[in-house]
Amino acid sequence: MTTTGRQLVSTLSADGTMVLELEETTFPEPTGNQVLVKMEAAPINPSDLFLMTTGANLENADYQTGKVTMQVAPQVAKGQSARHGKPQPVGNEGAGEVIAAGDGEQAQALLGQRVACVPGNAFSEYAIADAMMCLPLGDHSSEEGASSFVNPMTALGFVETAKREGHDAIIHAAAASNLGQMLNRICQEDGIGLVNIVRKQEQVDLLKSQGATHVVNSSGDDYEAKLADAIRATGAYLGFDPIGGGQTSDTCLRAMERVAASQMTEYSRYGSNQQKKMYIYGRLELAPTILTPSYGFAWTVSGWLLMPFLGSCDMQTLMGLRKRVHDGLTTTFASSYKTRVNLEEMLTKDAMMDYAQMSTGEKYLVTP
Amino acid sequence: MTTTGRQLVSTLSADGTMVLELEETTFPEPTGNQVLVKMEAAPINPSDLFLMTTGANLENADYQTGKVTMQVAPQVAKGQSARHGKPQPVGNEGAGEVIAAGDGEQAQALLGQRVACVPGNAFSEYAIADAMMCLPLGDHSSEEGASSFVNPMTALGFVETAKREGHDAIIHAAAASNLGQMLNRICQEDGIGLVNIVRKQEQVDLLKSQGATHVVNSSGDDYEAKLADAIRATGAYLGFDPIGGGQTSDTCLRAMERVAASQMTEYSRYGSNQQKKMYIYGRLELAPTILTPSYGFAWTVSGWLLMPFLGSCDMQTLMGLRKRVHDGLTTTFASSYKTRVNLEEMLTKDAMMDYAQMSTGEKYLVTP
Repeated sequence: MTTTGRQLVSTLSADGTMVLELEETTFPEPTGNQVLVKMEAAPINPSDLFLMTTGANLENADYQTGKVTMQVAPQVAKGQSARHGKPQPVGNEGAGEVIAAGDGEQAQALLGQRVACVPGNAFSEYAIADAMMCLPLGDHSSEEGASSFVNPMTALGFVETAKREGHDAIIHAAAASNLGQMLNRICQEDGIGLVNIVRKQEQVDLLKSQGATHVVNSSGDDYEAKLADAIRATGAYLGFDPIGGGQTSDTCLRAMERVAASQMTEYSRYGSNQQKKMYIYGRLELAPTILTPSYGFAWTVSGWLLMPFLGSCDMQTLMGLRKRVHDGLTTTFASSYKTRVNLEEMLTKDAMMDYAQMSTGEKYLVTP
Repeated sequence: MTTTGRQLVSTLSADGTMVLELEETTFPEPTGNQVLVKMEAAPINPSDLFLMTTGANLENADYQTGKVTMQVAPQVAKGQSARHGKPQPVGNEGAGEVIAAGDGEQAQALLGQRVACVPGNAFSEYAIADAMMCLPLGDHSSEEGASSFVNPMTALGFVETAKREGHDAIIHAAAASNLGQMLNRICQEDGIGLVNIVRKQEQVDLLKSQGATHVVNSSGDDYEAKLADAIRATGAYLGFDPIGGGQTSDTCLRAMERVAASQMTEYSRYGSNQQKKMYIYGRLELAPTILTPSYGFAWTVSGWLLMPFLGSCDMQTLMGLRKRVHDGLTTTFASSYKTRVNLEEMLTKDAMMDYAQMSTGEKYLVTP
């Protein structure tokens, strides 16, 4: 028995035309440890937008019901040449009800349950998911469980990465995001020092009201000095930057070096020996990353991505992370949404131009 | 008994005035495992120029015999605030005759010998050096031994770093330098794949005449495609970049990703999982490093510096590296110089404006 429903598909052509379209799709009967999930809620994360809005001219796109046709900037289209002409389903994660299951024991155990899942086509009426990767939600709603993978695992991954590399304090940029708020709660629970960088006073207030000790406003005149103060207080020489483009990471490295250099007893032309590291884990800005020659040679900038991180964990660690997310679904790992849209509504001009901005605290939830 | 002689000193003031001056200095009697070396030859390396010419207006400097006064660009002067008003001796390495030694056994063993040393004030008539760090030159001249530390150890350090990190091929930018020629010989001896990046056809010819297999000319129209070809042929996903500013490292990462992406069977918005890494080990260009968002998230850019690398080696490894340099002083590790100058001549306008360009293959040797 197969099931039919609409799913969102993104197709980029070599000429730079991108079509986002709700496509009538036939979902096969799940086999083995697969389950078929009737999707009820899925967040629009920045990582989803890469296939939906990155580099696209949304102002002048052609918006039809269930189909948007737009032009993508040539260099962006060129950079994605590997997907030219190949339709890509969209939507990393979401939650819904398991309405069919393969023969496998794990799959059968989920039949009839509400689960969070990571199918890769979450903006859809149905999705085939791997039972291993599903999180049973118990009495929680699909909305409560929709964001239980990407952000929670990423935030936990930062702390795990810090511990692995011998750090007990970290910097986080764009820290008022759902992810940032989770990280703030995790760091408090785990006793990890956290320097939150935000852009607005109201975001300072928000994080402080949630118990944050160090929140630095990058719009303030004395930003770099205050950032250095917070680094001095916490010893944070490792940071995570979702912005990527511009000088966010550069500024953090410079502030780290300012603190390290002030603790040197002797001048060195090569800068301090304090190792300083920034992970870029997103591209909220597509502009090039700028690194000025102002912090010697003891520094590293590196990409950070969730799936390779998870791949580097042993099974016991992974299970521990999942259990922690499950237990804290409505507390530590709670998400909030600005707006709910259905599959048609997510393809309107108003909606797309709004969520494409990826403004902090304005996340959309798709409820097919 | 003390010894008196002239040594070159660099003093930067808060107002951006930098003075390079030959200063009459009294050298104390060596104690313990110290030796006093009568300096005979010292190379002017890029790392020395940081204290001598970086950011300085050499065209309009005031040149007196043994004293040059110049203005340094404000942002460069600011970045070196830790040395404002503190005279810094100049000259990492050189060679000469040990004319006095401390009581220590190692020091006494060197008395009367010609040695290479790393005193930090090599542009001087005399220098106090640590016997542990001296390399006895036997029948070799001081000129042959003058560059036996910085370049040889750096080139060997690259190969050692590559091996540690599991690579058997590397990329080297500005590869026609003395250092690059050494690296070319070392990689041939060790069976390490090497992609040499140079800027001129004559440098291609030079390295090819020295047995290099892969030499790519960055001035060629098809530079990136040829670089990718060489990466494909060698599997070089680790590189060393002495330029630092601009897009040298970015171009290497992009070419690595081009090769890795061509070997993927399925499209990923996050790029390939092939880890790509560039080490920046110099700043021939002071402009910011530009990293474009064109190679996913599996990449790292990091500073590389000789002394921390050496500090990470155990004694046995260090001794092995030293022995290799000693045995190959006039072969694998031979250096060549464009010009010889004495201490006064190195402070003339013609000389300074020439060596400040750090042109490949135009190294100066100071013969006090």
